[in-house]
Amino acid sequence: MTETKKGRIVLGQNNYGKSEVRVFRVKRDTERHEVWDLDVRVSLEGDFEAAHTEGDNSKLLATDTMRNTCYALAKDKLTGSIEEYALALIDHFLEAGPTVTGCRVEITQYLWERIEVDGEPHEHSFIRQRGERKATVRGDESGARSVEAGIDDVYVLKTTNSGWENFLRERFTTLPDTNDRILATIVTAKWEYNTHEGIDFDRLWNGVMEQTLKTFTDHYSPSVQNTLYRIGKAVLERFPEIERIWYSFPNVHHIIYDLERFGIENDKEIFHATQDPYGQIEGWVERA
Amino acid sequence: MTETKKGRIVLGQNNYGKSEVRVFRVKRDTERHEVWDLDVRVSLEGDFEAAHTEGDNSKLLATDTMRNTCYALAKDKLTGSIEEYALALIDHFLEAGPTVTGCRVEITQYLWERIEVDGEPHEHSFIRQRGERKATVRGDESGARSVEAGIDDVYVLKTTNSGWENFLRERFTTLPDTNDRILATIVTAKWEYNTHEGIDFDRLWNGVMEQTLKTFTDHYSPSVQNTLYRIGKAVLERFPEIERIWYSFPNVHHIIYDLERFGIENDKEIFHATQDPYGQIEGWVERA
Amino acid sequence: MTETKKGRIVLGQNNYGKSEVRVFRVKRDTERHEVWDLDVRVSLEGDFEAAHTEGDNSKLLATDTMRNTCYALAKDKLTGSIEEYALALIDHFLEAGPTVTGCRVEITQYLWERIEVDGEPHEHSFIRQRGERKATVRGDESGARSVEAGIDDVYVLKTTNSGWENFLRERFTTLPDTNDRILATIVTAKWEYNTHEGIDFDRLWNGVMEQTLKTFTDHYSPSVQNTLYRIGKAVLERFPEIERIWYSFPNVHHIIYDLERFGIENDKEIFHATQDPYGQIEGWVERA
Amino acid sequence: MTETKKGRIVLGQNNYGKSEVRVFRVKRDTERHEVWDLDVRVSLEGDFEAAHTEGDNSKLLATDTMRNTCYALAKDKLTGSIEEYALALIDHFLEAGPTVTGCRVEITQYLWERIEVDGEPHEHSFIRQRGERKATVRGDESGARSVEAGIDDVYVLKTTNSGWENFLRERFTTLPDTNDRILATIVTAKWEYNTHEGIDFDRLWNGVMEQTLKTFTDHYSPSVQNTLYRIGKAVLERFPEIERIWYSFPNVHHIIYDLERFGIENDKEIFHATQDPYGQIEGWVERA
Repeated sequence: MTETKKGRIVLGQNNYGKSEVRVFRVKRDTERHEVWDLDVRVSLEGDFEAAHTEGDNSKLLATDTMRNTCYALAKDKLTGSIEEYALALIDHFLEAGPTVTGCRVEITQYLWERIEVDGEPHEHSFIRQRGERKATVRGDESGARSVEAGIDDVYVLKTTNSGWENFLRERFTTLPDTNDRILATIVTAKWEYNTHEGIDFDRLWNGVMEQTLKTFTDHYSPSVQNTLYRIGKAVLERFPEIERIWYSFPNVHHIIYDLERFGIENDKEIFHATQDPYGQIEGWVERA
Repeated sequence: MTETKKGRIVLGQNNYGKSEVRVFRVKRDTERHEVWDLDVRVSLEGDFEAAHTEGDNSKLLATDTMRNTCYALAKDKLTGSIEEYALALIDHFLEAGPTVTGCRVEITQYLWERIEVDGEPHEHSFIRQRGERKATVRGDESGARSVEAGIDDVYVLKTTNSGWENFLRERFTTLPDTNDRILATIVTAKWEYNTHEGIDFDRLWNGVMEQTLKTFTDHYSPSVQNTLYRIGKAVLERFPEIERIWYSFPNVHHIIYDLERFGIENDKEIFHATQDPYGQIEGWVERA
Repeated sequence: MTETKKGRIVLGQNNYGKSEVRVFRVKRDTERHEVWDLDVRVSLEGDFEAAHTEGDNSKLLATDTMRNTCYALAKDKLTGSIEEYALALIDHFLEAGPTVTGCRVEITQYLWERIEVDGEPHEHSFIRQRGERKATVRGDESGARSVEAGIDDVYVLKTTNSGWENFLRERFTTLPDTNDRILATIVTAKWEYNTHEGIDFDRLWNGVMEQTLKTFTDHYSPSVQNTLYRIGKAVLERFPEIERIWYSFPNVHHIIYDLERFGIENDKEIFHATQDPYGQIEGWVERA
Repeated sequence: MTETKKGRIVLGQNNYGKSEVRVFRVKRDTERHEVWDLDVRVSLEGDFEAAHTEGDNSKLLATDTMRNTCYALAKDKLTGSIEEYALALIDHFLEAGPTVTGCRVEITQYLWERIEVDGEPHEHSFIRQRGERKATVRGDESGARSVEAGIDDVYVLKTTNSGWENFLRERFTTLPDTNDRILATIVTAKWEYNTHEGIDFDRLWNGVMEQTLKTFTDHYSPSVQNTLYRIGKAVLERFPEIERIWYSFPNVHHIIYDLERFGIENDKEIFHATQDPYGQIEGWVERA
């Protein structure tokens, strides 16, 4: 510790762990195999002061040990949902490090479907789907646990039934109103469960995905904000186990290409799918 | 031109064009919309000597003009397969540039499926699939055209029925034999048609995709090489319109994690999906 | 609002804005040009309830207007540091939206150095450097402002004077001790200023970068944690304007390749630079 | 082999090998360490018919063996340029596989500079630079060798002394002329040496890099094509060891943002650095 005019300098909040642990599991006790394909990130909090200020590693679990542990526990604990596996990892790490007080496990699950051959799903051959399933589970030494599930990289689009009108106009506003545009977004979502016991995490994840897609399609969207709220509300109405849900919707702009200057009519048929600046709309929908 | 000991310095093979032209089309003449989502690259060859050596641009089509053209022609020509649209672009560019002698159009088509709502495909809402459809079409002023179709980024995996045994052993060989491993690869394919007329490009692309997946699942794979050959052969036997086909198969290694050292049995259940060096197997299968 | 068993469903915290606004400025009033190359992200908070729940956009600034504003204000306000430009944007947006209560501006500045020709820096030709300068500035309608500066994507490595010994050993620990390893990390840093007035942000950013690199080199590192603390402490001791600083250090593992099995000695000369799981060490160093 | 209407189906050109072998070497025989940081890709051609058609692996070198070999040979052979290391790998692989007839080794070298501390380059601490050095070396059993060196990901920009005027105008042309624009490109280059013996590959690579940057700055550019030709010509005039050189120049467009509509003058000061479609100009400059 050092004295300066501004006071002592100290270690603040800190954490460490292992990232990109790529656990792959095959369930092969019958002919019909199942797979789990995970990217696991473990992060520990605790009293790591001695390591930082004294170079004393004696109370530190090596991140290499964390990696070994993710694989070792997969054998018995990765048999159902990623949320349950994460809860087991947290129980373990809170025990394993003598000075650990909190643990966070973040999992990305890559999605594999069975290859269909002549209309039949294959027993042991799979094809990767777009989209990711996420879970972030936190726990501390008091026994508290919180479970957050999520969706990432699900790209959806509707070609009509969306507009953007009657917005605020001021000095720097140049965008015209429209009541018929393309709405395209790459869904990121996360939601919190109001308990971590007795939840069927797989059923709920599939249900949130299904409801998100369904509500996306079922209304005229006057703004991304309104669509976000409608989707969140539909999810909360359907699943009482979910306390609140957050969506992040980039607005991937599809701009009508000006073909009139070439004497070609373009009645919302030909668009430029721009990679340039995009809107970003984010918000929680929750229970009051 | 400059004289040196080594002789004159001259312009060699050259080409120029526009990349990442993101053409998006909606067919909306009925309630049931269709979409095309493309990344187009245009490349011209010809006598561009004056531009390079004299700074004389007078015979050069601007790349910005190429971009405008891709959108303008989409109106009438992007109504079926990307191969037919590419052929139309080539006809146009061979006319448009006074010194153009050859043209190549490369298209990546992003794949969108209808969102299913209560089991019914939606009229105007879509979700992006993993995998890409590709086409590369070349043409020259003599009227010659060649059409190459392709697949990219299709990630497949089988959890058994694959091995790697009895390979060459020498000083630097340490890998053990196995007759039961995970086989995982990200398919890149391209194939050449023996004509560009009268081909149903959409039906054939779907057929090659289906056959590639089917053959991937249907045999014990003694090596990636053998699986590559089997798949290529099955495609050529089924589709006489295809002259030859090439696959590139990265071998995405899934390594059994050593749990025995922790007293845990691991009978091909727990793997590390490594991002480290991977094998790469590439080859053509063709008609003699 | 809807009544359920679980209570009403309401809009929670939310924000919206524009991302990837790529503002490029040239200062060209003398022969010696200067450039700013920015990626700007604007995010607004406020009372956007009507837009979400009623589809009423009348109080919403369009994200397209935000984009226009970033460019328009660049003319007069982007003449010094990115922090000062961000502060100006915040003042503007807090005024521009009638229901806006808070604003966050995040800027990534890409770094360009002058090309050296025959030892002289060129007047108007530049080459992009690796590494990014970051700033995140927040403000609210009460007049409060907070300024956070940062560094990203600075990849450093030392080939000796680093180890990892005497750490905790338990059931799943297999890593051997070492007192001479390669230490490699990609620096991400952020720090908070204790005021936003009278700060020479450019001088301080350069100073933090210089000190970070210097301290990285100047000691035997018994752990990434200890090096992180030493660097943070050195920065805080040198710059009283900085209240606290956070580093994130991925531990990019370089693993000695086993050549002994081939009869080749490998005394810390030949390594595998793995892309597989990496350690991640993060923490704040701050004033007590 | 199979008989069809279209004739027998056979194996065509094929190759296999290992990619992303991340060899890192430290030279540590003095206090002043040196580092090589490589991504190596090995690819073999030969008579691999039996593996493809019969599943007979007995003549195949495993790609895992290739990986081991890259590390093993690094000990004695990676002591100078990457071109010399690649030549040694090729000699080895042409011997190691009984049916190998050709070999290609592609290397990307990541660039590290010494960290400067108080104006002095550090003995064993390094910082990664932007830009990559490339080499592709090919050899066959006849003893023939070809060496191609290259540059990648060097991003340069000039804020003036560039234009695009008097180009072809036709139906779809909308771009106005300019005699003062920003020219920005990400340099990819490759060049062929007319021998592989007695060449100082390191000196030449540095020389080509220096000349490329210098010529980029030293003239009014009427087109990317003309600048490409000038740079290639300057390189060939300076280095007689180089037979021909190829550049690929994406034209990264910087578009003047229209501020006049807001009553703000914009005399080539404020630009949008677009990520949308870009021009792509490619060509060889060679000796006649």
